[in-house]
Amino acid sequence: MRRDDFTFLHTLRVRWAEVDRQDVVFNGNYFLYFDVAVAEYWRAIGIPYPDGYVNSYGTDVYAVKATAEYHGSATYDDMLDVGCRVGRIGRSSLQFVFGVWHGEEHITSGELIYVNADPKTRKSAPWAEAFRKAVLNFERVAPETGAGTPR
Amino acid sequence: MRRDDFTFLHTLRVRWAEVDRQDVVFNGNYFLYFDVAVAEYWRAIGIPYPDGYVNSYGTDVYAVKATAEYHGSATYDDMLDVGCRVGRIGRSSLQFVFGVWHGEEHITSGELIYVNADPKTRKSAPWAEAFRKAVLNFERVAPETGAGTPR
Amino acid sequence: MRRDDFTFLHTLRVRWAEVDRQDVVFNGNYFLYFDVAVAEYWRAIGIPYPDGYVNSYGTDVYAVKATAEYHGSATYDDMLDVGCRVGRIGRSSLQFVFGVWHGEEHITSGELIYVNADPKTRKSAPWAEAFRKAVLNFERVAPETGAGTPR
Amino acid sequence: MRRDDFTFLHTLRVRWAEVDRQDVVFNGNYFLYFDVAVAEYWRAIGIPYPDGYVNSYGTDVYAVKATAEYHGSATYDDMLDVGCRVGRIGRSSLQFVFGVWHGEEHITSGELIYVNADPKTRKSAPWAEAFRKAVLNFERVAPETGAGTPR
Repeated sequence: MRRDDFTFLHTLRVRWAEVDRQDVVFNGNYFLYFDVAVAEYWRAIGIPYPDGYVNSYGTDVYAVKATAEYHGSATYDDMLDVGCRVGRIGRSSLQFVFGVWHGEEHITSGELIYVNADPKTRKSAPWAEAFRKAVLNFERVAPETGAGTPR
Repeated sequence: MRRDDFTFLHTLRVRWAEVDRQDVVFNGNYFLYFDVAVAEYWRAIGIPYPDGYVNSYGTDVYAVKATAEYHGSATYDDMLDVGCRVGRIGRSSLQFVFGVWHGEEHITSGELIYVNADPKTRKSAPWAEAFRKAVLNFERVAPETGAGTPR
Repeated sequence: MRRDDFTFLHTLRVRWAEVDRQDVVFNGNYFLYFDVAVAEYWRAIGIPYPDGYVNSYGTDVYAVKATAEYHGSATYDDMLDVGCRVGRIGRSSLQFVFGVWHGEEHITSGELIYVNADPKTRKSAPWAEAFRKAVLNFERVAPETGAGTPR
Repeated sequence: MRRDDFTFLHTLRVRWAEVDRQDVVFNGNYFLYFDVAVAEYWRAIGIPYPDGYVNSYGTDVYAVKATAEYHGSATYDDMLDVGCRVGRIGRSSLQFVFGVWHGEEHITSGELIYVNADPKTRKSAPWAEAFRKAVLNFERVAPETGAGTPR
């Protein structure tokens, strides 16, 4: 994973309450950071969540898998750059890929897989074409379109 | 504040992620503990929130003030007893009083003031009589009924 | 409380995980925001915590009281301005005063009282003169110097 | 994954502040639950962390990977059973496997990989033999001993 793979990076500062007794960011808190980066990604591609998506298309997105790998650690007051990109987009699923850097040091990698679904039935639903286009136009490294994936 | 003032104490164990670099529970996390104790208090008096209240009476409760005083500190893995009692009940407001003990050591005191209100208009509404009775029957130390308070 | 009382305001955006089922920021999370604002305040006066203080003077600061009053509510993605000022400075204690605004709407008021103490003995210790001066020089509205307070 | 694979399950109740606007536990909060279950697992095998391990053997454990898969959802006040077992133990690494159940419903699966290391140099170190024995004696389903793994 290279920083250059990311069109989009969101910078945030580590909060006191996010750091544990080992003096490092608690491992689970990186999923907070991923979530913040996803929110900013939606804004960056011009379709803010949820107003620009849920209200327009009537479907909502649900996390089905989350992963983080810890290569290094961050501590209180560190400024972190959280890269977020779409790695794969299928009919109704989407993989976000994350990389966290503290200056030049690569701290964390991660992924979040979401499924687009009807909020009442929880049945998967295809992504709105406008959303798919916004993602494909935005990314420097083309995501796999996932034409062969089952969902 | 004495432990004996509380009819109800809820015991919980301090989690790793709740402790900070000073090796003590982050001050803001005591409000999590107060919130957990309130949930268990509602259950203890026989009117679980929200199913036993919001669904029965159509009003909801909103925090208007929160206070904590720190007399000592707690750390990872400590078992804490969180006392919760109603200190005052008015027409539509309610003061919860809290005390946190680690064994014999009195760690924290606190209060949370809630207002009962219509969820749509956010206008204050009187407590359901069944709720008021359940509180008064439950408490060993009678709360001030707050007949003279403005709300 | 008026926005103009604050020399310093820190802006932050409400995160998804900070909002509850009532679709508002969970009451306890305002203490996270206060804590973030205090960190930025220390930086703004030129004495970043902890490197510029604990390491220079050998004492540390401990929360002894926290209060929040909720006048309104904020929700996901809202940009909040968190004002932070020193309201009172005593020999070894300090009161921070907070105000949270969402645009023109005043959402929350709060205070945090800290005591400066020796980290080993936990005995209160006078503020370093450089810190006291930095605070007094920074504030537009002079804090009460609290000469008469017991600590 | 079957519930019967777990010798150890820890039961906890979902807190108000852990549930989001979609009325489900925020995906990142399952890593809090995994962390709580690990703490209880160490206690269950008779080597409480950190006092029974770090202080006895001089090494500490560091998370290197965390994964969760979401099959269903949980909400406020739900009682969850969090199963935790050692799936693989290598020379200096350890995989915990998790399963979360709400009654009969399997909500979440997960894993956490830790490495045992010297806290100063951060170099990996072999597990203490007493710890390895305690794990192997405790588990109903024998973990892979991971003799062939590189660490």
